[in-house]
Amino acid sequence: MPEPRSAALPLRVLGIDPGLAVTGYAVVDERGSGGTLVTSGTVKSTSKMPRADRLGRIFDATRALIAEFAPHEVAIEQQFVNENVRSAMVVGEARAAAMIAASVSGLPVFEFPPTSVKEAVTGWGGAPKTQVAQMVLVHLGLSEVAGTTDVTDAIAVALARIADARMEIAMARR
Amino acid sequence: MPEPRSAALPLRVLGIDPGLAVTGYAVVDERGSGGTLVTSGTVKSTSKMPRADRLGRIFDATRALIAEFAPHEVAIEQQFVNENVRSAMVVGEARAAAMIAASVSGLPVFEFPPTSVKEAVTGWGGAPKTQVAQMVLVHLGLSEVAGTTDVTDAIAVALARIADARMEIAMARR
Repeated sequence: MPEPRSAALPLRVLGIDPGLAVTGYAVVDERGSGGTLVTSGTVKSTSKMPRADRLGRIFDATRALIAEFAPHEVAIEQQFVNENVRSAMVVGEARAAAMIAASVSGLPVFEFPPTSVKEAVTGWGGAPKTQVAQMVLVHLGLSEVAGTTDVTDAIAVALARIADARMEIAMARR
Repeated sequence: MPEPRSAALPLRVLGIDPGLAVTGYAVVDERGSGGTLVTSGTVKSTSKMPRADRLGRIFDATRALIAEFAPHEVAIEQQFVNENVRSAMVVGEARAAAMIAASVSGLPVFEFPPTSVKEAVTGWGGAPKTQVAQMVLVHLGLSEVAGTTDVTDAIAVALARIADARMEIAMARR
């Protein structure tokens, strides 16, 4: 189980960009007005595996990340509701795998629609993925991050949660 | 972990009718041309609970059923792809919770579209839920089963898997 968050520890968020074939993840610590990237990567599976085992892999990987990096919270992208039904079902299953891992680990889960994530990171809810990826680097103070937009989207949702948490603390102090 | 299936043990199937608010379950043993109902019931949650915890409850309950009743396999309904996107996403999440519980317990999962379940139980893929519920009683040799169609649908998907398994064994002997 993760340590409870204290004033001495910065907020640590596990960000998840869920997908059945590729799930991106990133652990980000709050730091000043941005964040520090602790780890990031992807969980992959192919359609040759049974569906239940593909979901089990996402679940197991999320549990392992929580055990190893002890995040305080999990942030996860919601999906567009105007996708087609079959893809909505599949992304819903991948999302569930990560959320259940958080739930059984006792961590709170914060969900963000894609537009809120883009807004938080770039200031514009309609920003393209490339711009999100660029602004993620600015927030982290890095010149590059290994991986595709699956990884930068996971970092972006973690940063969106960190921005919200910072706002909540500021509001509570008023 | 469940015992491996042997000739001495009848096939035992955990059937799941997944839903976020109500998930029906049933454990059914094969017997002659029908089955014996071992246990059945529902897992419920309200929208007041966080989504992740609602899914966690379905996951935990499925794991507990597997631990207690040691089924050899899990059978689960697929969903209509012509539902709306939001409901597809939600049912997908509930399905995932049950499938992940099966996967982490090392059990095979068999998925059936609703029409195949109805066909297996009533002989007609377009049968209404009331007819499915009636035919489930005939297959089990019971006069009634406690619970709603969430329960009878879970029994029906377990019976569909048992019918398929019986066919596989008959084909292997030819």
